[in-house]
Amino acid sequence: MQKNERPVIAIPMGDPNGIGPEIVLKALSEAAVHEWCRPVVIGDAYCLARTLADLSLPLHLHTINNDLSDAHFQPGFLNLIDLSHRGLENLEIGTVQALSGRCAMDYIEKAVELAQNGLATAIATTPINKESLRAAQVPHIGHTEILADLTGTYDPLTLFETNGLRVFFLSRHVSLRMACDLVTRERVSEMIRRCCAALSQLQVMDKDLAVAGLNPHSGEHGLFGDEEMTAIEPAVAACRAEGLPVTGPVSADSVFHMAHIGRFSGVLSLYHDQGHIATKTLDFERTISLTLGLPFLRTSVDHGTALDIAGKGLASAVSMIEAIRLAARYAPLYRPL
Amino acid sequence: MQKNERPVIAIPMGDPNGIGPEIVLKALSEAAVHEWCRPVVIGDAYCLARTLADLSLPLHLHTINNDLSDAHFQPGFLNLIDLSHRGLENLEIGTVQALSGRCAMDYIEKAVELAQNGLATAIATTPINKESLRAAQVPHIGHTEILADLTGTYDPLTLFETNGLRVFFLSRHVSLRMACDLVTRERVSEMIRRCCAALSQLQVMDKDLAVAGLNPHSGEHGLFGDEEMTAIEPAVAACRAEGLPVTGPVSADSVFHMAHIGRFSGVLSLYHDQGHIATKTLDFERTISLTLGLPFLRTSVDHGTALDIAGKGLASAVSMIEAIRLAARYAPLYRPL
Repeated sequence: MQKNERPVIAIPMGDPNGIGPEIVLKALSEAAVHEWCRPVVIGDAYCLARTLADLSLPLHLHTINNDLSDAHFQPGFLNLIDLSHRGLENLEIGTVQALSGRCAMDYIEKAVELAQNGLATAIATTPINKESLRAAQVPHIGHTEILADLTGTYDPLTLFETNGLRVFFLSRHVSLRMACDLVTRERVSEMIRRCCAALSQLQVMDKDLAVAGLNPHSGEHGLFGDEEMTAIEPAVAACRAEGLPVTGPVSADSVFHMAHIGRFSGVLSLYHDQGHIATKTLDFERTISLTLGLPFLRTSVDHGTALDIAGKGLASAVSMIEAIRLAARYAPLYRPL
Repeated sequence: MQKNERPVIAIPMGDPNGIGPEIVLKALSEAAVHEWCRPVVIGDAYCLARTLADLSLPLHLHTINNDLSDAHFQPGFLNLIDLSHRGLENLEIGTVQALSGRCAMDYIEKAVELAQNGLATAIATTPINKESLRAAQVPHIGHTEILADLTGTYDPLTLFETNGLRVFFLSRHVSLRMACDLVTRERVSEMIRRCCAALSQLQVMDKDLAVAGLNPHSGEHGLFGDEEMTAIEPAVAACRAEGLPVTGPVSADSVFHMAHIGRFSGVLSLYHDQGHIATKTLDFERTISLTLGLPFLRTSVDHGTALDIAGKGLASAVSMIEAIRLAARYAPLYRPL
C-alpha cells in the first residue's frame, strides 16, 4: 500500500493514570504499525513524554496541528494532537481521579471529531476507567455508550475478532438464566439481520453467518432443551427466506472451531460467555472488540486500565497493536450504514 | 525412558466399519508413539490387513499371544491380539451392522482384561458406534458405561485435556436451563472433591483447581445472577476448609486461558458447552477425553466413527496419536482410587 493510501487511525491516549500511554508508546514503536496505517494519537504531551522517558523507546513525540497537515507519518514518530490539559502535574498514576476521567473523555471527543471530519477513517481505543469517568461526571459507563451519544447512533453492535474468528452476541451482561429467556425467535431473527449487515459493512460476507446452538449438541432434536426447535431454527429459516446467508443452529462445541478455520464469516453466540470463552481461550491478548453501526469503524483492546501495574513498564502492547492492525485492515473496507 | 519401562497401552481397534482401523494404523506408523509406550492393538487381522494394503504404510502386522510374550515393541511393528471373528467378509465399511458392534465390544472387553491382569497399564480407545452396539444388543451407549460395567465402577469421571488445559464437567447432556438448576452448593462441593481426587490420581495437583463462574463476570456480586453467591462461593469455601486446593468462582472468560498458561491444575466447568467450547476451540483435534475412577487409566479420541469417510484414507490420526501420548504420559503416574 502506498504511504498516502494507508488509512489514518485516530488513537485516543486513554486514561492517563492507567496503562494507556504506555501501550500507545510501545505499539507505535513497532515499525509494522506504520506500514499498516498512519496513526495519530490524541492525548497530552506531558503524560506521554514522562512515560516515554521511563520506557526509553526510540520514538520522537511530534506535536501536530488539528488538520494533521504537519504530521510525519513514518516509523520513529508519534504524531500527537496535544490537548494540553491544565493541572496534569497533579495526576497520580494508578489512581482514580476526576481529572484523568475528564482527559480520557476529551481525547475520545477529539478522536470522534477527526473521524467525523473525514481526517481519520477509524478509531482504535485504549482503556478508560468507569470510576474516573464517574468522578469527572461523564454520564456514560464506557466507550460504546460515549460513541453512540457523540454520533447519535441508536444501538451500536459489538463484534469480537481474534485470529480471524468473528463473534457477535445475542445478549451480554445478563444472568445465564436470563440469557436463555432472551433466546426468542424474534430476537434471534433481528440479530441475524444486524450481524449480516455488520459483516457486509466489513465486506467479509463471503461465507455464511453461523448461529450457535444454546443447548449441548444443539439439544439433539429436543432431547435436552428445545430453544433450537422453537426459536433458533425458525429464525434461521425466516432469514434464509429473506435471502440472508445464515446457517444454524450449529453445536457450540464445534461452531467456533469451524469459523476459526474459515468455514463461516462469523458466529452469532447466544450468551456472553459462549462467545467470550471461544475468543479469549483461543487467544486472550489478541481478542479485539469492534464497534459497528457507527459512522466510522472503532476497534478496541478488550482489557482495562490495569491501575495496579500502571507506570511500571510491565504492560503488554499486544492487544493495542492488534486493535490498530484490525482498524487499519478494515478501515478501507468499512461502509457506514 | 528405557524400552522395558515404557508403559504398555492397550488399543482396541474400534468399530471395524468406521475409521478406527485407519487411525490406529496411521498412529502406529509414527515412530514417536513407540518411544512413548509399548502399544498393543486388540482387533482383527483381517480388517487391519485390508486397510493397511489400501494405505501403503510401512508397518508390519505382528500377531501376538494373549500374554504379549512374543511382542516386538519397536517402530514398524503393530503388535496385534487377533480376535479372529468369523464372517468379517460380510462387513460393509461405512455402515451400521450388528457384527461391527459385536467386534467393537469384544475388543474393549479384551483390552480391559489386559489392564485388569496388569499386562497393560492404560487403554487408549478408538471410536465405537451407538447404533452398531444397539444392533449387537450391547446394553450400553458408550465406552464410559461399558468400562464402568466391566470394572464394577459406580460413577467414572470424565476429564478433557488439550495442550495442558484440563477441564471437568459439573453436568453434561442436559439442557442449559437444567444445567443452571444443577448448580447447587451440594453438587458443586461434591464435584470439587471428586475433581481434586482425580487430579491427585494423575499427580498433577501442583496448582489449585479453579471453579468457573456460571454468569458473565461471575455475576458481578449478584448484579446478574446469584448462583456464585448462593452455591459456588459457599462450596469453594467449604472445600477449602477441608484443605482442598480450590479457587473460585473465576470468570469463565478468563479461567480457561489462565489454566492453559499454567495458573491452575484444572478447571471445573459448570455445563457441557462451557468446557467444550474452551477445549475444542483451543485445539479441536487434540482435545482428549480421559476417564478417571476406573482401576486403570483410559484415554480416548473425542470424535466418532465418521462412517461417511471410513475406508477412504481421509481420516486424521492426530487425535489418536494424542490419546496414546496422554495415556503413555499418565499411565506411570496413575493411582487407582
